[in-house]
Amino acid sequence: MQMITKNLDDVARELKKIDYSVILTHQYPDGDTVGSAFALCYALRKIGKHANVIINGNLDKKFSYLMDSYQNQDFVYRSVISVDIAATQLLGDLKDEFVNKIDICIDHHAVNDIAAKLRYVNPTAAANAENIFELIKILDVDIDKPIANALYTGICTDTGCFKFSNVTSQTLRYAAELVDLGCDSYEINRIMFDTKSMARIRLEKAVLESLTLHADGKIAVINTTLKMETETGVGDTDMDGIASIPRQIEGVVIGVTIKEKADCDFKVSIRSLGNYDASKIAVAFGGGGHHAAAGCSVKGNFDDVKKQIISVAESEIKRAENL
Amino acid sequence: MQMITKNLDDVARELKKIDYSVILTHQYPDGDTVGSAFALCYALRKIGKHANVIINGNLDKKFSYLMDSYQNQDFVYRSVISVDIAATQLLGDLKDEFVNKIDICIDHHAVNDIAAKLRYVNPTAAANAENIFELIKILDVDIDKPIANALYTGICTDTGCFKFSNVTSQTLRYAAELVDLGCDSYEINRIMFDTKSMARIRLEKAVLESLTLHADGKIAVINTTLKMETETGVGDTDMDGIASIPRQIEGVVIGVTIKEKADCDFKVSIRSLGNYDASKIAVAFGGGGHHAAAGCSVKGNFDDVKKQIISVAESEIKRAENL
Repeated sequence: MQMITKNLDDVARELKKIDYSVILTHQYPDGDTVGSAFALCYALRKIGKHANVIINGNLDKKFSYLMDSYQNQDFVYRSVISVDIAATQLLGDLKDEFVNKIDICIDHHAVNDIAAKLRYVNPTAAANAENIFELIKILDVDIDKPIANALYTGICTDTGCFKFSNVTSQTLRYAAELVDLGCDSYEINRIMFDTKSMARIRLEKAVLESLTLHADGKIAVINTTLKMETETGVGDTDMDGIASIPRQIEGVVIGVTIKEKADCDFKVSIRSLGNYDASKIAVAFGGGGHHAAAGCSVKGNFDDVKKQIISVAESEIKRAENL
Repeated sequence: MQMITKNLDDVARELKKIDYSVILTHQYPDGDTVGSAFALCYALRKIGKHANVIINGNLDKKFSYLMDSYQNQDFVYRSVISVDIAATQLLGDLKDEFVNKIDICIDHHAVNDIAAKLRYVNPTAAANAENIFELIKILDVDIDKPIANALYTGICTDTGCFKFSNVTSQTLRYAAELVDLGCDSYEINRIMFDTKSMARIRLEKAVLESLTLHADGKIAVINTTLKMETETGVGDTDMDGIASIPRQIEGVVIGVTIKEKADCDFKVSIRSLGNYDASKIAVAFGGGGHHAAAGCSVKGNFDDVKKQIISVAESEIKRAENL
């Protein structure tokens, strides 16, 4: 039986009933999924429960402070909780063991297909850590620094340090509460938003060299190649945010990033502003996404791929400007 | 007679007495000084006063939305208010006309040497706009969108979008209130933190090409030249934040930016982390500043200047590590 609730009290009641829980995070774990997981784990332990976090894949070393006060407990799990996991597919390597075994799903993605006995999805939360913060308050747990740091990590990373359009006054008030609770907000911001690897610096340089402007400066295109990745030595997380570079240029309304995945095989990320619809461009190539951020895969010779995408982007500019 | 107050009620009382005010901003106007000025100007007009803002030099076009509902009023001023101006010297071109004529000074810089009849300086405010927000509430003004946008601009720009160490829970709560009051927080964030000119992009590329690492990667040095400035076409505001680039690199504890001001004449900006003291390095060259951010001017051949600074920075690393 599956129950959907809009009330975190139901989730709190269920959490009090269960024990020996594992808390699952999503594939390619980010700050919100691990922040949510550690905060909930620490809170459950504080109310006398046994709980462990399962990191789903490699955790970037920048998140290591979240584990400073973490030790895995030795038990056989009886309950499974998923946090910030929007889709079964995002269970990744955990799918075989845990699919259809999830007791409680707590998430903030508008579309969520996780099968769980109890499912709470609140898309008004900019970060799932906001949901977890509310839940921990209902559980009446004394929020210490490790919990506050985990919650703050989730909130600041999922909002680009309060920069994105998902930020609400509630997001900012929760952050204020966490600062009052003693979280290391400045240090966390510094690690998340003010630190770059040398490999990333080298990649940015290479990517800026690839930059071209089109349609009177309304379209900007950058690209990465497998050779660049090897030469700069970037890892997966070093590529984060590269796709947002071209759209940041003054006057640009459509930013395109073409990433070489294999020979003649490209992943294309499209970002747009205002009326210009990134998803319309992606759909033309069999991809999809949102109005402001979309993507597709395109095969072919690089120059041809780039030309085709620019051509469709130019059509989108005409469409949007004749609205 | 000069009075210093720690109570904004005194400032509000004085503002109710005076009329025909001009509100002064500081030289090289930034988001906090103009945000403070427009918010206060709009508020004074709402309580029936005459008020104008005096922009001190060129206002970057990114701030133009602040003036969407602004029209200069035609009057001969009888009162002068300064906002976010820490030092007489920062009056710049306004100095001759206004020095010693300032009635009310409202600021948040710990050191403030402005001569004013009434001076309110509150350094716990991350942005002076926080002080203005409190003041406007005391004046019981209905805060509309232009006021909320001006206040939010001041707060977000002086905190690096809530990233810097000056952010308090009050800063975040005020931002939350402004979001509830309908300010265009996302759009303002996008303009301030997610938009770069092509000239800036070209400069970043050139600057990254100049990057060198020293002391096992603990020191990073970049430099800009007059030639780079001409070739990239950067303006003054395009240079903002360049000095923070070298310290952002993973593992770097001292970041140095050497800016060519004239032939054999360099402005050196130093940024440091943790125990490493940027001001000790600056002082060795006759400059000064704070622990984490300092600067100095050095004359000589570029290679020599760079060598000397690296050598002093290496000594500072030794000093800090033997503490």
